[in-house]
Amino acid sequence: MPTSLVTLTTDFGSRDAYVAVMKAVMLGIHPGLRFIDISHEVPPQDLMAAAFILSDAAPYFPAGTIHLAVVDPGVGTSRPAVALRAGEQMFVGPDNGLFPLVMQDTPLHQAVVLDRPAFWRTPSPSATFHGRDIFAPVAAHLAAGRTLTEVGTPAETLHRLHWPLPLADEQGVQGWVLHVDRFGNAITNISRAILETYRQARGVKCYVGSGVVHGLHRTYGDVEEGDPLLLFGSSELLEIAVHGGNAARLLSIKKGTTVNLVFG
Amino acid sequence: MPTSLVTLTTDFGSRDAYVAVMKAVMLGIHPGLRFIDISHEVPPQDLMAAAFILSDAAPYFPAGTIHLAVVDPGVGTSRPAVALRAGEQMFVGPDNGLFPLVMQDTPLHQAVVLDRPAFWRTPSPSATFHGRDIFAPVAAHLAAGRTLTEVGTPAETLHRLHWPLPLADEQGVQGWVLHVDRFGNAITNISRAILETYRQARGVKCYVGSGVVHGLHRTYGDVEEGDPLLLFGSSELLEIAVHGGNAARLLSIKKGTTVNLVFG
Amino acid sequence: MPTSLVTLTTDFGSRDAYVAVMKAVMLGIHPGLRFIDISHEVPPQDLMAAAFILSDAAPYFPAGTIHLAVVDPGVGTSRPAVALRAGEQMFVGPDNGLFPLVMQDTPLHQAVVLDRPAFWRTPSPSATFHGRDIFAPVAAHLAAGRTLTEVGTPAETLHRLHWPLPLADEQGVQGWVLHVDRFGNAITNISRAILETYRQARGVKCYVGSGVVHGLHRTYGDVEEGDPLLLFGSSELLEIAVHGGNAARLLSIKKGTTVNLVFG
Repeated sequence: MPTSLVTLTTDFGSRDAYVAVMKAVMLGIHPGLRFIDISHEVPPQDLMAAAFILSDAAPYFPAGTIHLAVVDPGVGTSRPAVALRAGEQMFVGPDNGLFPLVMQDTPLHQAVVLDRPAFWRTPSPSATFHGRDIFAPVAAHLAAGRTLTEVGTPAETLHRLHWPLPLADEQGVQGWVLHVDRFGNAITNISRAILETYRQARGVKCYVGSGVVHGLHRTYGDVEEGDPLLLFGSSELLEIAVHGGNAARLLSIKKGTTVNLVFG
Repeated sequence: MPTSLVTLTTDFGSRDAYVAVMKAVMLGIHPGLRFIDISHEVPPQDLMAAAFILSDAAPYFPAGTIHLAVVDPGVGTSRPAVALRAGEQMFVGPDNGLFPLVMQDTPLHQAVVLDRPAFWRTPSPSATFHGRDIFAPVAAHLAAGRTLTEVGTPAETLHRLHWPLPLADEQGVQGWVLHVDRFGNAITNISRAILETYRQARGVKCYVGSGVVHGLHRTYGDVEEGDPLLLFGSSELLEIAVHGGNAARLLSIKKGTTVNLVFG
Repeated sequence: MPTSLVTLTTDFGSRDAYVAVMKAVMLGIHPGLRFIDISHEVPPQDLMAAAFILSDAAPYFPAGTIHLAVVDPGVGTSRPAVALRAGEQMFVGPDNGLFPLVMQDTPLHQAVVLDRPAFWRTPSPSATFHGRDIFAPVAAHLAAGRTLTEVGTPAETLHRLHWPLPLADEQGVQGWVLHVDRFGNAITNISRAILETYRQARGVKCYVGSGVVHGLHRTYGDVEEGDPLLLFGSSELLEIAVHGGNAARLLSIKKGTTVNLVFG
């Protein structure tokens, strides 16, 4: 099933030529390809941030989309290169735990180790840029209709990382901030499902950073401008935000900051 | 009239997945769509900056282009969502005053309030991301050939914002800086037409920030390297620039800084 | 030979509308065009940085690609506008020395001065934005199948800039840092060929910034995490890097920093 849509998620930034080089290599193999950049501003070598961003975006893409994700602290070492099919999409990149974080409950249909130099840009890939020499060319060959078992050998197992899970009981929930977005909204690892299961319609108070935030709201405009609030964001995770302001700045919140919710 | 070109102007930044999510949603509806990013670096919730950037770009796009603009401080409140046709282009986004600023003298042919959930991603849109759930899907449906009156109900009126106008008389003009670009050029709200009408071929002195700039020039190279100058930029608005340098830094100019021109 | 692929390299940044304006102008002339952004984050008016980035990317693009490069400190002065064919690609932009740096040993087949207003956006181009009024429209016309001699007059000569070359003898090599990438890797002007010719299998010690780095490695993982190393990067130029860290920060290296290699 040939496709024409490849997304890119990297920590390459937008100043250097690295992203354009990968696209050029892919267009050389499959001239009809179309690219959607998910993000190239993943903090250098931050796998969890890359997983957070890619897992936010991937579910919205059409069946057949190929996600190329290159955040690769182990480039040039023996960490395998992989491609896999999960649900109706494919993923290509280093086997460093990123993809299991992204797929979550999506069934993994097939995974291969990329060990066929015939599908690489060169049989002697650079020790520092597998994005150019292995991942991009393989993604383009898959988009052009090659199958996973043509470009690689079935993988025994995938390297796995896990999202940190919140701790919850009848008194409350302890979680932490996974991501601070451009608006200063602090997105936590506390899902709507976890929170609602344990609080059972009671009130909620949130201790986070330098502040305490009361109650749950539906949207920013439900509180006065400048006031902080708790709400479930577009990913159904609890967020700390400020109406018309920057919660991270106001409450000294950073990625990793602890979030304590108390019920009743 | 189906089209295939959608532009995007947002304050979402380039690090998070938000922009890619909107593109994914649109491709799910209209796989042949093509996207041109105008800017995602609008300062958070800054409608005037968004209007400045979009009005700079929109006139150059071909007939049939759809401009999706999501700078949406009122997301989740009762501010309407709108789509409209002005000249030969369409605009989709929140009704917060942005589009009238952009259209200026372009005749508005039709405007609708987006009140038909059949054209949304879901009948229960997120309270925080109408870009994903309402604006992007409607833009894609319009691009696929749906008409404005299919996707919404004629709007009685649009929310309007106005550009701040300069004050001018025979002695001079007082205006201010609308935008500082990446080169440190300070673009003012003083148009060539206003300036020429009032100065009537006399000389001009400009008091701005920490400096005084004399005379009007055609281009940067007309003064010595490192010297400041006044010129009309590519939008026919008066700019303060420095040949080979950064005027904003040299003269302590920011967005909003007052500009006083004295004639004679 | 019509083509549909235009790359863009500018110092326009991603906040303002300038890049979108150039794309809009091109789509008005050639609606089927596809764009690949190489970089818009070239430091303002830094020709050497632009050349470094574009020369890193250009060789990977397919035959027929047109590279539009607008870093143009001399806009509005008498510096010519040019278009040229080198190898199987074309380049369009100001004649300021950038293209000879990029082409290096690629044979130059033809170069023209862009002096035919019929192929511009307007016969009276803005004095400050030739990207919009001259370069973008000419690139689109070339993509649509116009020949170089249709859009311009054969150029007598091109303005040339030269890469700074390292000094090498039997004792060692002195070069300097051309570029620091997003990861803090410092890329020097010392090629693998130069280094290997002179060191003749002896050991190497590198004095750079505040540190001394010993030996040459193949990839980051060959040293302990946090340790600095020398290696040849994906462009076959000597790099100073830190495994899992930022060499520029650790060793106080900047663009222009001297690099002294001592053999034996």
